[in-house]
Amino acid sequence: MRSNEVKNRTSTDVIKSLRLITAIKTPYLPDGRFDLEAYDSLVHVQIENGVEAVIVGGTTGEGQLMSWDEHIMLIGHTVNCFGGSIKVIGNTGSNSTREAIHATEQGFAVGMHAALHINPYYGKTSLEGLISHFNSVLPMGPTIIYNVPSRTGQDIPPHVILSVAQSPHLAGIKECVGNDRVAQYTMGDIVVWSGNDDQCHDSRWDHGATGVISVTSNLVPGLMRDLMFEGKNPALNSKLIPLMEWLFCEPNPICLNTALAQLGVVRPVFRLPYVPLPMAKRIEFVAIVKEIGREHFVGHKDVQVLDDNDFILVSRY
Amino acid sequence: MRSNEVKNRTSTDVIKSLRLITAIKTPYLPDGRFDLEAYDSLVHVQIENGVEAVIVGGTTGEGQLMSWDEHIMLIGHTVNCFGGSIKVIGNTGSNSTREAIHATEQGFAVGMHAALHINPYYGKTSLEGLISHFNSVLPMGPTIIYNVPSRTGQDIPPHVILSVAQSPHLAGIKECVGNDRVAQYTMGDIVVWSGNDDQCHDSRWDHGATGVISVTSNLVPGLMRDLMFEGKNPALNSKLIPLMEWLFCEPNPICLNTALAQLGVVRPVFRLPYVPLPMAKRIEFVAIVKEIGREHFVGHKDVQVLDDNDFILVSRY
Amino acid sequence: MRSNEVKNRTSTDVIKSLRLITAIKTPYLPDGRFDLEAYDSLVHVQIENGVEAVIVGGTTGEGQLMSWDEHIMLIGHTVNCFGGSIKVIGNTGSNSTREAIHATEQGFAVGMHAALHINPYYGKTSLEGLISHFNSVLPMGPTIIYNVPSRTGQDIPPHVILSVAQSPHLAGIKECVGNDRVAQYTMGDIVVWSGNDDQCHDSRWDHGATGVISVTSNLVPGLMRDLMFEGKNPALNSKLIPLMEWLFCEPNPICLNTALAQLGVVRPVFRLPYVPLPMAKRIEFVAIVKEIGREHFVGHKDVQVLDDNDFILVSRY
Amino acid sequence: MRSNEVKNRTSTDVIKSLRLITAIKTPYLPDGRFDLEAYDSLVHVQIENGVEAVIVGGTTGEGQLMSWDEHIMLIGHTVNCFGGSIKVIGNTGSNSTREAIHATEQGFAVGMHAALHINPYYGKTSLEGLISHFNSVLPMGPTIIYNVPSRTGQDIPPHVILSVAQSPHLAGIKECVGNDRVAQYTMGDIVVWSGNDDQCHDSRWDHGATGVISVTSNLVPGLMRDLMFEGKNPALNSKLIPLMEWLFCEPNPICLNTALAQLGVVRPVFRLPYVPLPMAKRIEFVAIVKEIGREHFVGHKDVQVLDDNDFILVSRY
Repeated sequence: MRSNEVKNRTSTDVIKSLRLITAIKTPYLPDGRFDLEAYDSLVHVQIENGVEAVIVGGTTGEGQLMSWDEHIMLIGHTVNCFGGSIKVIGNTGSNSTREAIHATEQGFAVGMHAALHINPYYGKTSLEGLISHFNSVLPMGPTIIYNVPSRTGQDIPPHVILSVAQSPHLAGIKECVGNDRVAQYTMGDIVVWSGNDDQCHDSRWDHGATGVISVTSNLVPGLMRDLMFEGKNPALNSKLIPLMEWLFCEPNPICLNTALAQLGVVRPVFRLPYVPLPMAKRIEFVAIVKEIGREHFVGHKDVQVLDDNDFILVSRY
Repeated sequence: MRSNEVKNRTSTDVIKSLRLITAIKTPYLPDGRFDLEAYDSLVHVQIENGVEAVIVGGTTGEGQLMSWDEHIMLIGHTVNCFGGSIKVIGNTGSNSTREAIHATEQGFAVGMHAALHINPYYGKTSLEGLISHFNSVLPMGPTIIYNVPSRTGQDIPPHVILSVAQSPHLAGIKECVGNDRVAQYTMGDIVVWSGNDDQCHDSRWDHGATGVISVTSNLVPGLMRDLMFEGKNPALNSKLIPLMEWLFCEPNPICLNTALAQLGVVRPVFRLPYVPLPMAKRIEFVAIVKEIGREHFVGHKDVQVLDDNDFILVSRY
Repeated sequence: MRSNEVKNRTSTDVIKSLRLITAIKTPYLPDGRFDLEAYDSLVHVQIENGVEAVIVGGTTGEGQLMSWDEHIMLIGHTVNCFGGSIKVIGNTGSNSTREAIHATEQGFAVGMHAALHINPYYGKTSLEGLISHFNSVLPMGPTIIYNVPSRTGQDIPPHVILSVAQSPHLAGIKECVGNDRVAQYTMGDIVVWSGNDDQCHDSRWDHGATGVISVTSNLVPGLMRDLMFEGKNPALNSKLIPLMEWLFCEPNPICLNTALAQLGVVRPVFRLPYVPLPMAKRIEFVAIVKEIGREHFVGHKDVQVLDDNDFILVSRY
Repeated sequence: MRSNEVKNRTSTDVIKSLRLITAIKTPYLPDGRFDLEAYDSLVHVQIENGVEAVIVGGTTGEGQLMSWDEHIMLIGHTVNCFGGSIKVIGNTGSNSTREAIHATEQGFAVGMHAALHINPYYGKTSLEGLISHFNSVLPMGPTIIYNVPSRTGQDIPPHVILSVAQSPHLAGIKECVGNDRVAQYTMGDIVVWSGNDDQCHDSRWDHGATGVISVTSNLVPGLMRDLMFEGKNPALNSKLIPLMEWLFCEPNPICLNTALAQLGVVRPVFRLPYVPLPMAKRIEFVAIVKEIGREHFVGHKDVQVLDDNDFILVSRY
């Protein structure tokens, strides 16, 4: 189902060279539909601050809470509005091979530049099954594979990656297992992005990682740009660590969603099963913003604590 | 769910000015999925021959046989690949107001320039219901309303159009009822496109129609361009009438699908309930092509009769 | 995908013998979801009054406004709750052969006793295409074919019916074209149900129809039972004609929906594109109920005119 | 959306009393659709051997590879065919609260007797989010909560269970964490089913578990019946341990799928990402069957090794 004409088709090499990729937040209207105006503003700020690519509908962007038509629409929308300024990587992975194939075909058809693929979480499979799964989608275009055992319940071992790396479309690995694994891949000339913001400085400068697929860059894109582009900077890294620790005190994107609402750049709307952080943690965030400097964060309004009843939780949408 | 950033956003006035719009064919692979490479070629030829817009997933493009995710994907794909060269009008209409709203939001989000809306066929509704239906989608962007009682079982009377014409987004009407109705609208400064190829020459030059939404232009885009742009030309019109009559000897797009397969530009694959024309009619088409001149038709291969068993009919896809 | 075990599997002969079939209304909650409690009550009253079968999600039940999962769920629900007391006929027809196949497989899998199939409305097809369409679904189980050119824009001619009648699963035809057509079929031993309430008495007693697929029986099931079972009764028929004429003064089910709300048996909730009848027609209905006798109508509350703002119209659900 | 009429509605107490529940396999046709005839036979054998309930579309039944309409159809089908003989528990859980709500409403509407709910795998959430998630579905009917951190990446801690146990609909917990956790619950009068076949004997007889939700009972339902009903039997347990170990040598249901194909009761069709066990493991299974005795296993054909190319792997279906 490939097209001859896909505009802005991107080579795998271009994907391999990206250093700062944001797993972009999906903001919602009070009825739970996408708030595309807020989304456009978020992506715009990413571009202005030098972010090179976005993951659309990643776990951070809550792809797991989207219907597939919403998901593909958001990829197509992002390509259509911003595809000339930033690379668009669609999270078209699934624990169902059928769904991964269908979504990836559709994502490339609407112009995404690369696909992000996860191993089959929850249902899991054998190592041979993993290889079959990835090989079902790799022929379609540039691909990043995402390894996050704390979510999937199953590590993708290096020999599986080596097997699928025979495809010229494998751009690299988003790796969350730690810097030893990162180094193991980069020594073998496999491109790696850190999937852990608090490790990414060391991954990049000490272990050969090309960059990061970041949650934190939703909040401080300029500082994350510095961290990935301007050379080793332990001082900046240390300055950001408290923010990063706060950001992962609950399963992501709970903290990010809360923070962006406090910064006034998204409506305080949560799709269940996500719920906002409690008051005490929101107060902490205000202090963290002041410590790092409001000017480094996205948005222009004062950071707020918000009341519990400012938040809207939606379960039917 | 509107975005601030939609690229190539088109004013209603631009849509109103279009003279030649093709209701583009959707070609299929042998398993019934879209054949995007063939599709891209079809659109490409339309652009080269001066066609100004395409209807994606119209009745000609078999939107009625698509799942909505396929349909929106095809709109997004067309925008992404060709949106700078041709206007993309998504047929996001439905007999279900819910579906029409959802599809139209998604279509504009992925960048379509205008929507085509039908009155609720089959289920039908009251005139007040018609107005509510159209007013549910008109706020989203430039809109063409399609009146074809022979398909819907219900004429949209002029006073319904006058009511919804209060929206600045109403670009005009695709009207199939005939030239008296066309004249009635154009005298009232409502833009009309003929929905009947065999009437469109007279609609355009004698009754004030702006142009045509054409099936025939899938086959002879250059001649249809001449017919709509180069002034009154009854000789050309007469020359095309036998083709047009052949093209509607069975419910559209049965004949168009058969013809494009005979011209070698699409695979001979039909999604049921459409089936190819019988041999005798296919032989007729070869003669018509020779009479008009192969060079005026799309594609470069010799026109063929094809055998019955060249055709593939798919019911699960 | 047939099962060995489907409970209550019904022979085509049993379907052929049904005289009174109600195209049952689907009631809604204020948010537009199904109101299953109200639905169960409606079906219950049908059973108590001797109705022998229901069409689930017909045009009256607004199948055209359902997602397929809702539609199949409602069929399964009806079978599960009432399948021992009344025959459940799922309207699993579609203008897309793929959808008709998928829905019909699922409907029989959840236990429906027969399928209702329409010819491809709106998209239409050739006569050969019609035959292919029906033959794609007939092998699955007992089938009624529905001919209603005023909705579909295309009459199913008798020779198409004769062709598909070679299948032992064809139970018969729901025919709306008139009593000459009814007689033509019944003389050829093809079972017919009238699809027009105002003609059904004559169809049944003068033209050989087996019975009726009725809208009116939603309101006065007992009287419709008398009309179909107790012999020729022009007096009763005349008494009901004003109700039937009122009931079809706008495209069905607009009037039925309004009437059931006025009778207090469903919430006054409309899914667009349907909107309630205006006040003047609602006042008429109250008079009609009084003329025929409130006790013959479903429900126990006083019939009400209702205020315009009692009605809730939903477009997203 | 609850109904007044749901047939066979089951009290939570009845669900609490079930000792042997099979997580039933879903068999496929060569094109990947459900093989309902094979499915019916599998359920039939379960009933004959005294199994009291089935989980439909669990991880064993590959609910994660179903579209929701398939999944609800299979629940409705099972209720319709077997609901009088065996309890039908639908796995209507999801990591999306919206999907869990929608599927659970539909499942109860088509007559399932209880729902199985998982915590949000992969996307995960906070403990407060977990409670909100479960409380969104508990009002709908009898519910079993499933805790399997090796698949979900997140343990459901006991205080979350205690919180949601305030609902009268909580039937109990399918617990995979081990017998200490089992004992902790049963001492607090919370019903537990073991989710680990190799521990279930001890869970049942030493730690207060009510029974097991079993994979092994797909193969040897009668022996599992003995294990759960006939008192402590370490000899039988020991006899079954090699089978159980073999059955979980790869992520379930890879081994079960392979075994049932070898026993000749399902076609050797796998939906990716599942792939069959290699030859060596299949040979092992033949030996295990002979050791335990063919007569204790489902089916009547000789157990076979099968060739690699007997297996069909489907990725589009």
